[in-house]
Amino acid sequence: MVMKTCTIRLKLPEDSKNAILVKNLYLSCDPYMRSRMRKSEENYVEPFTPGSPITGGGVARVLDSGHPNFKKGDLVWGRTGWEEYSVITKPESVFKIQNTDVPLSYYTGILGMPGMTAYVGFYEICSPKQGDYVFISAASGAVGQLVGQFAKLLGCYVVGSAGTKEKVDLLKNKFGFDEAFNYKEEKDLEAALKRYFPSGIDIYFENVGGKMLDAVLVNMRLNGRIAVCGMISQYNLEQPEGVHNLFCLITKRVHMEGFLVFDYYHLYPKFLEMILPRIKEGKITYVEDVVEGLESAPAALIGLFSGRNVGKQVVVVARE
Amino acid sequence: MVMKTCTIRLKLPEDSKNAILVKNLYLSCDPYMRSRMRKSEENYVEPFTPGSPITGGGVARVLDSGHPNFKKGDLVWGRTGWEEYSVITKPESVFKIQNTDVPLSYYTGILGMPGMTAYVGFYEICSPKQGDYVFISAASGAVGQLVGQFAKLLGCYVVGSAGTKEKVDLLKNKFGFDEAFNYKEEKDLEAALKRYFPSGIDIYFENVGGKMLDAVLVNMRLNGRIAVCGMISQYNLEQPEGVHNLFCLITKRVHMEGFLVFDYYHLYPKFLEMILPRIKEGKITYVEDVVEGLESAPAALIGLFSGRNVGKQVVVVARE
Repeated sequence: MVMKTCTIRLKLPEDSKNAILVKNLYLSCDPYMRSRMRKSEENYVEPFTPGSPITGGGVARVLDSGHPNFKKGDLVWGRTGWEEYSVITKPESVFKIQNTDVPLSYYTGILGMPGMTAYVGFYEICSPKQGDYVFISAASGAVGQLVGQFAKLLGCYVVGSAGTKEKVDLLKNKFGFDEAFNYKEEKDLEAALKRYFPSGIDIYFENVGGKMLDAVLVNMRLNGRIAVCGMISQYNLEQPEGVHNLFCLITKRVHMEGFLVFDYYHLYPKFLEMILPRIKEGKITYVEDVVEGLESAPAALIGLFSGRNVGKQVVVVARE
Repeated sequence: MVMKTCTIRLKLPEDSKNAILVKNLYLSCDPYMRSRMRKSEENYVEPFTPGSPITGGGVARVLDSGHPNFKKGDLVWGRTGWEEYSVITKPESVFKIQNTDVPLSYYTGILGMPGMTAYVGFYEICSPKQGDYVFISAASGAVGQLVGQFAKLLGCYVVGSAGTKEKVDLLKNKFGFDEAFNYKEEKDLEAALKRYFPSGIDIYFENVGGKMLDAVLVNMRLNGRIAVCGMISQYNLEQPEGVHNLFCLITKRVHMEGFLVFDYYHLYPKFLEMILPRIKEGKITYVEDVVEGLESAPAALIGLFSGRNVGKQVVVVARE
């Protein structure tokens, strides 16, 4: 990734009907962006175009609009460019921000794509019920921290794994998880899970894949559910690790399901209705890892894959 | 496995209340029996007791009964011993045979556990609909041949894999599959599946696991379903093979679910109502691989794991 500087005119060209020109305020670093760095049939989002600014989630202010639904001054969140100013040619794909009495950066996280991911992954895929034993990997991340809090609100027993002591402390003391552990300090992940779930796991919210998934499979409970949200431990490998314990899907009658948040955005208004009051009442909290300046963005994105970030990774481009 | 001969009295002991004494007619060789030959937490059926006759599915005639629901002369199917005569101490677990105008051996297969497995696996787990692209591995086996016929009756496009030319011919010419291939002759299973499913697989009925599952995963279609019924290619391995392509569960939003037929026996009457007329009308056919005599049983069971059998493996103990 390289930074480039050039001069632009802060005005939409005459012929750019339906486009909007925005000033980018916050950018989101998300694990799925890694897959856009390779050409593959497996891509569910198109690959980045070499030589062009990369794109990703962000929060932006509309400076000029050729689209009837947007006017100068509007705030939006959705796909924008990693640059100070962007022209969004299909603004139908971004959301207008209506609620501004919360931190605007939240629309890259709890109120944006990761928040919706946690919401649909937990409520739509996991069939959760009170008393369920819930395990979440990468649990202090943008999605995990919310899944755990949703599960606690429902009355589940919740355990999370993370990669540093600081994150483990966050899980237990800030997000209210019942237990948490540092997977890097566990020689035997199967035994670690057995320790926290002596009678097994009802729900596994899968964010990491590989060895952790193998360890979870043998610890699943009868009729367990696995929501496959991501497999971040695998994204930088030449070949994904092999998972050996899938036979447990049969013996435990496990339902395992992959999902993509893009299929569920029709639920966004319902999601906001649920989450906004809970944020305001302090019943749900959110931790962000904020770096300043577009020049900090490449390292912040790369840091996701070694777990450098603590909480949702946000880049501030401008505070207006 | 060894054969032993001893003399018994063909009468229930006085104190064996609720038990029945049966003469075994047909025994069933089933892949799940392999797992009963090792001690493991993963067993969903208890392991065999070394030194005692092994047990499994079978068809038997009641010779003596201490149970009010059974009388001398009744025919039953269910768990019995690999011996000429057995005492079944909990006959609540066996089914009384009401329909005898079909081959009795069918109650080890199409009308017994494998038939129910195909039925619940396909209709309860796969959410099938007309026009779906369906792939079945080990497709000429006791379960696979039925899943394919159910799928054809519903109007699906059906392809099966098997391990010999003879079985491939059966799939195409006897069971009415649209296509079939010999997986042993394919160097690249991914490419083979791509050839038969250029636009992908909606439903995979998983009987083999390992490399085949990996090849299927990359060929799944959006919102595909995988019913995990068995993984016979893995049962004789020290450690199961690794499956590398699980990330496809996310990109294709795949629902993968393991199941055990034991959870669904309440549907047996409904199943009989569906299948009996179709057998009689010739709309569903069933191929058995029949060996004669209890002494042939060990080799028949072991043969399952190298694909020696063509169709459902049955052992005739006595034709009465």
